Amino acid sequence: MIQLYDLAGADERDRWSPYCWRAKLALAHKGLAFEAIPWRYHQKAIPATAKKGTVPVLVDGENLIDDSWQIALYLDQAYPDRPGLFGPAAGADPALALFVKHWTEQQLHPLLRKLTLLPMYKKLHPTDQPYFRASREAVMGVTLEQICQDRDETLSAFRQQLAPLRSLLRDQPFIGGAQATFADYIVLAMMYWLIVSCNISPLAPDDPLQNWFNSLSTVLDRAGLCCTKQ
Amino acid sequence: MIQLYDLAGADERDRWSPYCWRAKLALAHKGLAFEAIPWRYHQKAIPATAKKGTVPVLVDGENLIDDSWQIALYLDQAYPDRPGLFGPAAGADPALALFVKHWTEQQLHPLLRKLTLLPMYKKLHPTDQPYFRASREAVMGVTLEQICQDRDETLSAFRQQLAPLRSLLRDQPFIGGAQATFADYIVLAMMYWLIVSCNISPLAPDDPLQNWFNSLSTVLDRAGLCCTKQ
Repeated sequence: MIQLYDLAGADERDRWSPYCWRAKLALAHKGLAFEAIPWRYHQKAIPATAKKGTVPVLVDGENLIDDSWQIALYLDQAYPDRPGLFGPAAGADPALALFVKHWTEQQLHPLLRKLTLLPMYKKLHPTDQPYFRASREAVMGVTLEQICQDRDETLSAFRQQLAPLRSLLRDQPFIGGAQATFADYIVLAMMYWLIVSCNISPLAPDDPLQNWFNSLSTVLDRAGLCCTKQ
Repeated sequence: MIQLYDLAGADERDRWSPYCWRAKLALAHKGLAFEAIPWRYHQKAIPATAKKGTVPVLVDGENLIDDSWQIALYLDQAYPDRPGLFGPAAGADPALALFVKHWTEQQLHPLLRKLTLLPMYKKLHPTDQPYFRASREAVMGVTLEQICQDRDETLSAFRQQLAPLRSLLRDQPFIGGAQATFADYIVLAMMYWLIVSCNISPLAPDDPLQNWFNSLSTVLDRAGLCCTKQ
């Protein structure tokens, strides 16, 4: 069976990594069964042949892929008879998903980081905590506590940043059109990060994006996945 | 010959509308000759059959299209033997360009408006000025002078908003991949708005996006178009 190394907190049911969520949603979309193996930062050696030393890492027989974008490309190529990740047609152009990837990483990720870093830290395995604090504080130049100040303002800014999505989805149900594609999962995965690590709803109750969010949850149900503890 | 009604200032060489630029760049990409007819806000009746009463309006024989997005879709459908606007293949999926359209309109347009509205006002035909001031101030709730305060800060915020483009174009020359597509022109047209109305460079001299900007200018040269007065 396909294995996916999936970032976990001290409680192995805590799986918040948006990049792992991308991979899990892609697997669910393709209808592929997989085992999500909990992985923690101090377990750098598993799997030994992964180059980047980060998760997600997908192991499919002899194939090992250690990047969520590459995993999506691989799955579409390796399983062309399953539903396409970039559009209904097999081998559809991933250009839209690539733009959404960069938009998400440049304009959503920096805001979400200001909400998630401290709660993630608190839920980490104790062996992971010193590494996590030191590496993140080195990058950001301030303490985790300082990064995660002004939470209400940051959540409000995040919700505002979804404006392009809100206007696009006025006219069509999914980012790629009539059906969910990897572009949708890239954004959804960011939202799961917030839900799992902070128990914060990414959308206000009256946000028109709620329909889109709820439609996508069916892919989780089909795959027996859940983003909250059970 | 194809005609395009194109927003103009008092000096008819001032053509700054980003939506008209989208249409002109699309026509240039397709290699179609056209006449760009200067149009001013008070000329509501031209052409009489346009529904929206806004430009651009494209007139191609019996076909009249009055929206820049619809113009691009029309041109690809009506001229399938010419270079595709949404990718090299005829009838390529416009999904990427549609996301870029909404991103541009939601996350670039509001910032650019804070730079362009007052300079545009000053360059308008005197007959257009009262309408322009009243309509824009009604929407924004403040005077044009107040909207266009803090120009340096706004320009800096605009340049920061281009971050997704900057990271995407690290790995490929154009938004859609190897070749320029309508998605590129949508962003470029926003930049022309700033150049023509304010004579402000949208990119800092050391911005890596300069390469992309310069590559795209060839489509203008081919069509004999220029975004600055000659």
